[in-house]
Amino acid sequence: MLELWELAGRDDVRFSTFSWRTRMALCHKGLNFNAHPVAVSDKQAIAFSGQTKVPIVKASDRVICDSWEIAVFLEREFPDRPSLFGGAAGEQLAYFFNLWTDREIVPGLVPYLMFDVLDCVDEPDQRHLRGQIEGIFNKPLEELYSEREKALQLLGKKLAPVRKMLVRAPFLGGVAPAYADYILFGTLQWARVVSEVQVFAPDDALSDWFSRLLDLYGGVGRSERARGERNREAAE
Amino acid sequence: MLELWELAGRDDVRFSTFSWRTRMALCHKGLNFNAHPVAVSDKQAIAFSGQTKVPIVKASDRVICDSWEIAVFLEREFPDRPSLFGGAAGEQLAYFFNLWTDREIVPGLVPYLMFDVLDCVDEPDQRHLRGQIEGIFNKPLEELYSEREKALQLLGKKLAPVRKMLVRAPFLGGVAPAYADYILFGTLQWARVVSEVQVFAPDDALSDWFSRLLDLYGGVGRSERARGERNREAAE
Repeated sequence: MLELWELAGRDDVRFSTFSWRTRMALCHKGLNFNAHPVAVSDKQAIAFSGQTKVPIVKASDRVICDSWEIAVFLEREFPDRPSLFGGAAGEQLAYFFNLWTDREIVPGLVPYLMFDVLDCVDEPDQRHLRGQIEGIFNKPLEELYSEREKALQLLGKKLAPVRKMLVRAPFLGGVAPAYADYILFGTLQWARVVSEVQVFAPDDALSDWFSRLLDLYGGVGRSERARGERNREAAE
Repeated sequence: MLELWELAGRDDVRFSTFSWRTRMALCHKGLNFNAHPVAVSDKQAIAFSGQTKVPIVKASDRVICDSWEIAVFLEREFPDRPSLFGGAAGEQLAYFFNLWTDREIVPGLVPYLMFDVLDCVDEPDQRHLRGQIEGIFNKPLEELYSEREKALQLLGKKLAPVRKMLVRAPFLGGVAPAYADYILFGTLQWARVVSEVQVFAPDDALSDWFSRLLDLYGGVGRSERARGERNREAAE
């Protein structure tokens, strides 16, 4: 049995962009795993890994950190399970897509909705996240949040090449999902779980694709409730 | 035998960014082809294709336009030859890399060195290219050329993810070259053929990779002489 350490907020909400990449990769490989929730600021819980970030995967006595390194590890360690990359060329280009997403998409979305995360986490994590993002952008989270409409428009343009991929095939991996799908899914799932803000319109091709991703592996993505669902339930 | 129509300048210089992608793809597949030079402004020569751009490939009675569509055609038509994409996931992500290169790299380099192309082509083509680029940028080619140092610095930053790929493997296709390599190669080969400007430093990992690409298939890329070589010969 594999072990996964991933971020969790109040009421065990699982919202980590990067942990969702790993979760989907584990499901893609059909591997069972125990998921351990870790609070954002609880660095003690993951001190065993020798670093301060999740996701972390433990397999027997091996500890692997960083979502990309975990994907490569799973591909090498379980070659007889469905491939995450579909070969060497696919792996190199999935790495490129990972870098592109981390450079263009994550910073083009996450800071602008981070204000929404504050009431998904406990007080020490609120301070931690506020300090982290405000330190990078030199602006209060509230101000970044007020810029979200403009940020979302820019994000929509940056995602244009992904829309074009979806004209060719239903997944970024082609006819079947692959790790590239999970890379982008992680960030959009983060947005779905932490915020009611609509990242793309319902008639956007990305919306259909995202829905297909939420349905995979028994609906593991959908089983994590959206912020909107949680809010409606709390209001009842 | 396949037929290829591609741009050519004065003294038969072959400098097209997109035609080099196709040339390398044809060599990768081990296919023989007749290459027909076409002047930039000679739209009559390719009127048979029903459109105005090269590269164009003709196979028996089929005419295929657009370098990406040609690559897909070659992959489908010659499945027993070495694969350009390495499978469905690799093909989707190569398409993404093609879009990224066309959005970020081609416009980040080509306009700034276009002034150098003027004395590689005849007078009608000079007028055509000047009109085209100056129409888009609303600046004389000379002014764009004067901004080249800044543009090259920005390009160097945009290529950072490609450098990271080359830490993992010698080619963008992994241990062996694939179509993704030819996508980027085409633009850098264009720069090498039309300009003496150094796009990257000799100690840049991209320089080693580019050199490996020039050596492929009996040195087909290297056999097209660099602008520097032609200039030195003319000076002798």
